[in-house]
Parts: sequence; structure tokens; C-alpha cells
Amino acid sequence: MAAERLVVVGGDAAGMSAASQARRLKGAGELEITAFERGHFTSYSACGIPYWVGGQVTERDDLIARTPEEHRARGIDLRTRTEVLELDLPGRRVRARNLDSGEESWTGWDKLVLATGARPVRPKLPGIGAHGVHGIQSLDDGQRLIGSLERTEGRRAVVVGAGYIGVEMAEALVHRGYEVTVLHRGPQPMATLDPDMGGLVHRAMNAMGIVTVSGAEVVKILEDEEGRARAVATASGEEYPADVVVLGIGVEPRTSLAREAGLPLGESGGLLTDLSMRVRGQEDVWAGGDCVEVLDLVAGRNRHIPLGTHANKHGQVIGSNVGGGYATFPGVVGTAVSKVCDLEIARTGLREKDALAAGLRFVTATIRSTNTAGYYPGAAEMTVKMLAERRTGRLLGVQIVGGAGSAKRVDVAAVALTAGMTVEQVVALDLGYAPPFSPVWDPVLVAARKAVSAVRAAGV
Amino acid sequence: MAAERLVVVGGDAAGMSAASQARRLKGAGELEITAFERGHFTSYSACGIPYWVGGQVTERDDLIARTPEEHRARGIDLRTRTEVLELDLPGRRVRARNLDSGEESWTGWDKLVLATGARPVRPKLPGIGAHGVHGIQSLDDGQRLIGSLERTEGRRAVVVGAGYIGVEMAEALVHRGYEVTVLHRGPQPMATLDPDMGGLVHRAMNAMGIVTVSGAEVVKILEDEEGRARAVATASGEEYPADVVVLGIGVEPRTSLAREAGLPLGESGGLLTDLSMRVRGQEDVWAGGDCVEVLDLVAGRNRHIPLGTHANKHGQVIGSNVGGGYATFPGVVGTAVSKVCDLEIARTGLREKDALAAGLRFVTATIRSTNTAGYYPGAAEMTVKMLAERRTGRLLGVQIVGGAGSAKRVDVAAVALTAGMTVEQVVALDLGYAPPFSPVWDPVLVAARKAVSAVRAAGV
Repeated sequence: MAAERLVVVGGDAAGMSAASQARRLKGAGELEITAFERGHFTSYSACGIPYWVGGQVTERDDLIARTPEEHRARGIDLRTRTEVLELDLPGRRVRARNLDSGEESWTGWDKLVLATGARPVRPKLPGIGAHGVHGIQSLDDGQRLIGSLERTEGRRAVVVGAGYIGVEMAEALVHRGYEVTVLHRGPQPMATLDPDMGGLVHRAMNAMGIVTVSGAEVVKILEDEEGRARAVATASGEEYPADVVVLGIGVEPRTSLAREAGLPLGESGGLLTDLSMRVRGQEDVWAGGDCVEVLDLVAGRNRHIPLGTHANKHGQVIGSNVGGGYATFPGVVGTAVSKVCDLEIARTGLREKDALAAGLRFVTATIRSTNTAGYYPGAAEMTVKMLAERRTGRLLGVQIVGGAGSAKRVDVAAVALTAGMTVEQVVALDLGYAPPFSPVWDPVLVAARKAVSAVRAAGV
Repeated sequence: MAAERLVVVGGDAAGMSAASQARRLKGAGELEITAFERGHFTSYSACGIPYWVGGQVTERDDLIARTPEEHRARGIDLRTRTEVLELDLPGRRVRARNLDSGEESWTGWDKLVLATGARPVRPKLPGIGAHGVHGIQSLDDGQRLIGSLERTEGRRAVVVGAGYIGVEMAEALVHRGYEVTVLHRGPQPMATLDPDMGGLVHRAMNAMGIVTVSGAEVVKILEDEEGRARAVATASGEEYPADVVVLGIGVEPRTSLAREAGLPLGESGGLLTDLSMRVRGQEDVWAGGDCVEVLDLVAGRNRHIPLGTHANKHGQVIGSNVGGGYATFPGVVGTAVSKVCDLEIARTGLREKDALAAGLRFVTATIRSTNTAGYYPGAAEMTVKMLAERRTGRLLGVQIVGGAGSAKRVDVAAVALTAGMTVEQVVALDLGYAPPFSPVWDPVLVAARKAVSAVRAAGV
């Protein structure tokens, strides 16, 4: 019997995790694996790019978990710099082009994995194509930005957008000695938090010398005679001089191939899958990583949440299933952590506007505590905001901003959300306590106590 | 109508939390509150004593959350240096003696709260009463030890026991410039962990210059002519010179009053309560803190777990109930965290021997990972051990030893245990990921993946 043929489109976290897991379950005699990757690199940490740009990580290759050669040594026919141009679903084949030679060819499959990732949003603005304007998504993007920074003499950077990527890139550019201005549309940076919590991030950014401009609508990138970006113009008529411009306004699923092939896409343009990460309505096509939508278990709807941690899990699940095993990805609760300077930033579950959009009625409770016992040397402030459903008291979301230990504190709430706990149940949780790690009432529990009172006060 | 009379025996975490919460719910016109405390201090952090002894916390009063004067200002008749000598349950009164004046009197109650705490175990050994031999439980104990350290010229300390208190006191004494030897009975220090994990603690203690002696049975404290401890002798005939001896061999519930009054005690001598923290079989007597046993939700039995975090919760629950509200304490999962030097130590749920004693069949999985992305500067090792029930895959326990972020990582498992999750459900948890805080697969998830495989491999 001939070996089954698995084709993987996309060679980063989801794709190569899937390929590796499938290979673990089935040897080369049973399963032939071919993987296509447009770029030069495989299995790298895109989330690490800001720390590479900022200089904390010195070697690009430190971000690479597994090189193309290592994948090949494990019996995966990996073709880098090769872009898949067409999915022929009825014919069970893909058409790919080698980006160096220009050669094209068809490859047949019995099982297909789509892991095409996401691409930085590039609004159609005048000058957006100027030299010195960078989106940051792939390692190739990071390499280009660092090349550009090394060639540039000026030291003024404008970052457009103040989400995770924008904030992390702003800090990275400060570390590289740039004067950084962050232009963002909302009232506060880090719109992944409610504005009251985003305000804490705002202050920390300003304290490290980053200029933040809220309510800023970018309308144009101004270029010099050589086609290099020289300033960013906003709708209000301001011009912000820039030797380099970094776009941190989010990413969108890279699903044009899937769309052309007629595969089902969700509201945010991501592929729709079932719980085993198989594309809906398909028998032998799977998808995972930044090109899919995931089920938000708290909001009860799909969302596009491009995060390496989900991509890796998707890959693991897909690899198990195409390799003859069984696994599922039940969904997410929307956990994300980040930092700017020493300030840790975390969220899980719903923000106020998410809860409103989900049709939920809720109360909020915000408390200020410390990350360690208050008397322990170096104790730093920690602010916790909690959302709970009215009447039922069900936990809906938590946001934390503060000193060391704030970010991963949110995991407690992530597990409680997954388990569907009420804030009353959260108060009773047996969390670790010792003076170097927490006040005797952990800040998450203090927030839950306040939320319990708020639920009671709100009545039915 | 006359005000109801509440009497509280014991003025630390549980007792004064109960009194304060009851006062919040009922004013002085409705509820008279009298609290008795043998020592000088109220509402202090006993867990902070090692850091005070070690010098990281410089002021004793920093450990005091609320002074006797502050409690009195809130309408609580607080009597410090006053020891309750007898509980007259049928007569609804207690007999107390002022330790300074020697005066005795009876005080009547309508509701009684017992929060008598725990006392350090002091084995009946020759010389145990020598000067320079210290147990550490109350702030008064800490005060005495520091006084003794300040008067002592020698710089050799012997710590007996290598549980949390022993290990923390050993580190504190190193910080004070002592040569420290820790004598302990088991094969490894920190017997609250399985020995394989305790071995990691062992190495860290030795690396900071602490001498550890395993399998050591202390039989005698040798004294000089003035009745001061000068050495500790073990069953094997060794003598360890000591200018100061610290007993860190655990504590036991201080329940002799309760026993004499005929109140129900459990196997470890702690008071038995119902879920509202009312003493079993009693209508108007409540108990909480280090003098009670708590339900271990994973083992399905009572245990004595003296921890400030439980004591505070008990007090809150009791205060709500005696104040006319309603609250319960559902039990614990056995979470505890600590550190020695930079090594963080955590556990929750069952160790191997706990699981065996509970009649459970289980598999274990141990993995080594890092606390941040491996490429992030300062990444430190983190070892996670997980126990899962055979057949069902239910999570039974987690132990973590490693660099920054290891201790509170265990909270994820504490919540998962409370929710009764399987290790397969743990793998799917949406935990926070960013390179400064975690590898893309959080170490807890990596351990869970390995545990899933172990459960499968073990079959039914």
C-alpha cells in the first residue's frame, strides 16, 4: 500500500507542529509529508521579534525552535521560499512556486493542512509603500526592520497602533535609542483592556519617555525624494517626523487562497473549523494557527486571536488527528499577557464592551493591591479589574496591570473562566501564599470579594 | 433589646478577621465584641517572621496589619496579654487571666469564636528547654529569637526540621551571617514535596552554603553550665555545635481548652467544623485558623494545614455568619508556596504518598522547562511534576520547583484541581503567553501533555 500524502501549507508554529506531531505518530513508510513555506524560516517565535529588535535577544536564530534542516532530518519534505498559489480541492492538489527560481509545480495530497498565518494590516494610505514603513509579523519582516534600523541615521520612530505589537515595538525602539511616538485611535493605549486599565499602561509608557497620541487617525505617510518615509500625518493636520514607521495596527488572517477555493470563512476572515480543527464541511482539510477563527468560550462566538500559543496547540491537535490519533481544541477564553518596561499587562475573558456585545449584564470591581506582602521589600502595585455576570455571579473577565507577577496572575482567572466558576467560588480558591509572592489575600481574591458584593448590590 | 455578646478567643488572623467582619455587619448597639489574646500583638503576619529575622523586613510593626488600638477604635473590646483558661459551654462563659496582673474573671457570650492557633511542636527531649532553643510561631516568638540572636556572639545555628519554616529560617539565618546546619529526618528537605522534587531544594540549599543532614534524628540538646544550648546531638552519635537552635518541625493545633470542654477534635487534634466554620454539634460556637482541621477536597479527608491565607478566609466566613450574613469555606486543595534563595517551591494537591494513602491509583509526569521563553535573557529552569489518576486522567497534584514565576504557577493547578479537571482539560487551558513570562507551551501544560500520555500508557 502506498504511503498517504500529507501537504502542509505554511511552515511556522501551527503547520510545523502539525507536521511534527503527525510524523511522531506515523513513519515515512506510512505518511509522506510535504510542507511549503514562503519565507526563509520555519518554527520561529514571532512573539520574540520585539525582543530581538530591542536587543535583549541578540541572535535571530535564537528565535528559531526548529530549522528547515532539522525538519528535513525528521523526514519532512520542507520547501522554503516556496509559495502555494492555488488550492485545487476537487483535484486534491496544490500549485506552488519557488520564489527564487520561479518554477511552478503541482503536488497531490490525501490530507491537507492550511497554516497560512496572518499578515499585518496595511491600510491603503498614500505613502504606505514608502521605504522605512514596516509591518511586523514574520521573521523576514523582523530581519527587514532591523536592516532598515541599521541603515538609518535618524533616531525618530513613529509606531502606528498601541495594541500588543505597537506597545512592545515602542519599547524595543526605546531600547535601541529611538525617540518614539505612538499614534493610536482609541482613548488609551492597549485597547485590549478597558480604557480605565489602559490608562495605567499610558502612564507607564510616558514614564519611559514614549510620547503617546490618542485619538490619532493616520491619513498619510510623507516621503522624501528618494521614496523614504519622513513623517506621518494625522487627520487633525499634525505631522510626526519619522525616520522609521512601524505598523502595529493588528493582523488579519491570510486566507485569500482558502477564499478562492471556496472554503468557509468567518466574520473576521478566518477559516472556520470544527473542534478537531478540520475545516467545516471538509473531510480531509485541516486548518490552524493565525489563519483560523477560534471559539471564544466566554462570549459564545468565534473570534480571530492570532497567538503563538494557540497556533502550537492547533498544530498538535491537527497532527494527532491526521496521524491517526484523536485530539480536539475546545476554544479559548481570551487570555493575553504583555509588558511595557516593568509594568505587566494581562487580560482574560471579556472586557466591558465584549460583555455588552455578547448581550451580558454585568458588574465590575476594581481593586488596588500589591504583588507581594505589602511589607516585603520591592512590593509593587497591582490593579485588578473583574467583570461578573449579574444575578448568577459568573466570572466574565479579569484585567491585571502591575508589577512582577501581575501578568501570569491572570491564568488563575483563565482556569476559573474555563470551569465556569462564579466569583464566590473564586473567593474560596486555595491559591499559594507566602510573603515574597502575594499578600495573604491574593489580589485576584480581593477583586473577587469586591465583585461578590457588587453582584449582591446589583440584585436581579 | 440588649446587644448580643460575641467572644473571640485568639487575636491573630482568624480571630480578628472574624471580629472585624462581624463588626462591619453589626454595630456596637447590636453586637458587643470581646476578644482575648495571650500575646502583645494582634493581626500580624506570622509568615513574615523569617523575613524579619533575615533582615529584609526591618520593622517588626511592618508585620502587623492592625494593632490592638486600631481594633479598639473599631469598637472591639480587645484584651491583650489575657489568656483564656477555661471554656464553660453550658454556662456560656469563658474564664480569662490577665498575664500581667494575674487577675481572673468570667465573661459571658451568646456566640463564641475559637481562634487559638497552633504551637510549635517541641519534642520532649533532654535540653529542649535550654536558653537559645526557639520555636517560631507567634510574633512574640520572633521577638524572643531576634533578642537571642542579638545577645549571642557565636555564629553557628542549627535548624531542626526542613519544612517551610525550617527552610525559610535557615535562609534567614544565612542572611544574618550564621553558619547554618539543617537536621531533618527524611531523605530530602521539604518533605511537603515528593523526594525527587525535594532533591532540587536540597541542591539549592547547599549552593547557598547551608549544610543539610538527612535522616537525622535529634535526641538531645546539649547545654553549657549556664543552661544555654551549645550543641544538638543526633541518634547516630553526631553532635552539631550550635549557638542558637531553631525548631522548625511543624506546629500542632492549640486545642487543649477545646478538648477539656469536650469539643470534637479530628485525627490531627484540630477542631472539627461544618462548612460554615461552626464547631460540629454546636449551635453558637465557631472555630477557624490554625486550630481547626480543613477538608482536603482532593484527598477527601480532613487535614491540619496551618496557613495564614486559610485563617483569614475562615475569619471572614465566621464573621459573616456570626454577623447575620452567610458564607462558607468549602475546603482546600493543599496549595503552598515558598522559596529558598532564588529557588521557588510550590505544591498543590496530592504528593505520591498522599495519593497512595487516599487509595488512588495514579501516574506521574515530570518535565523540565524554563520560566520564560528559552531565548529570553535570564531564562531559568523550571521543573514540574504532575500526578494524574489512572483511567480517569483526573489531575491529582502538581509540584513545581524553579526560577522566578515557578511558585505562583501552581495556582493554575489549584484552580484546575478545585474544578475537578482532567489532565487533558489542563492541556487545553488558555494560559497567558509572551516571551518574558513563559515558553509558548507553558511548563504546566507540557507536564499535562506528558501526563496525558502516561494515563493512556497505563491503560485501565
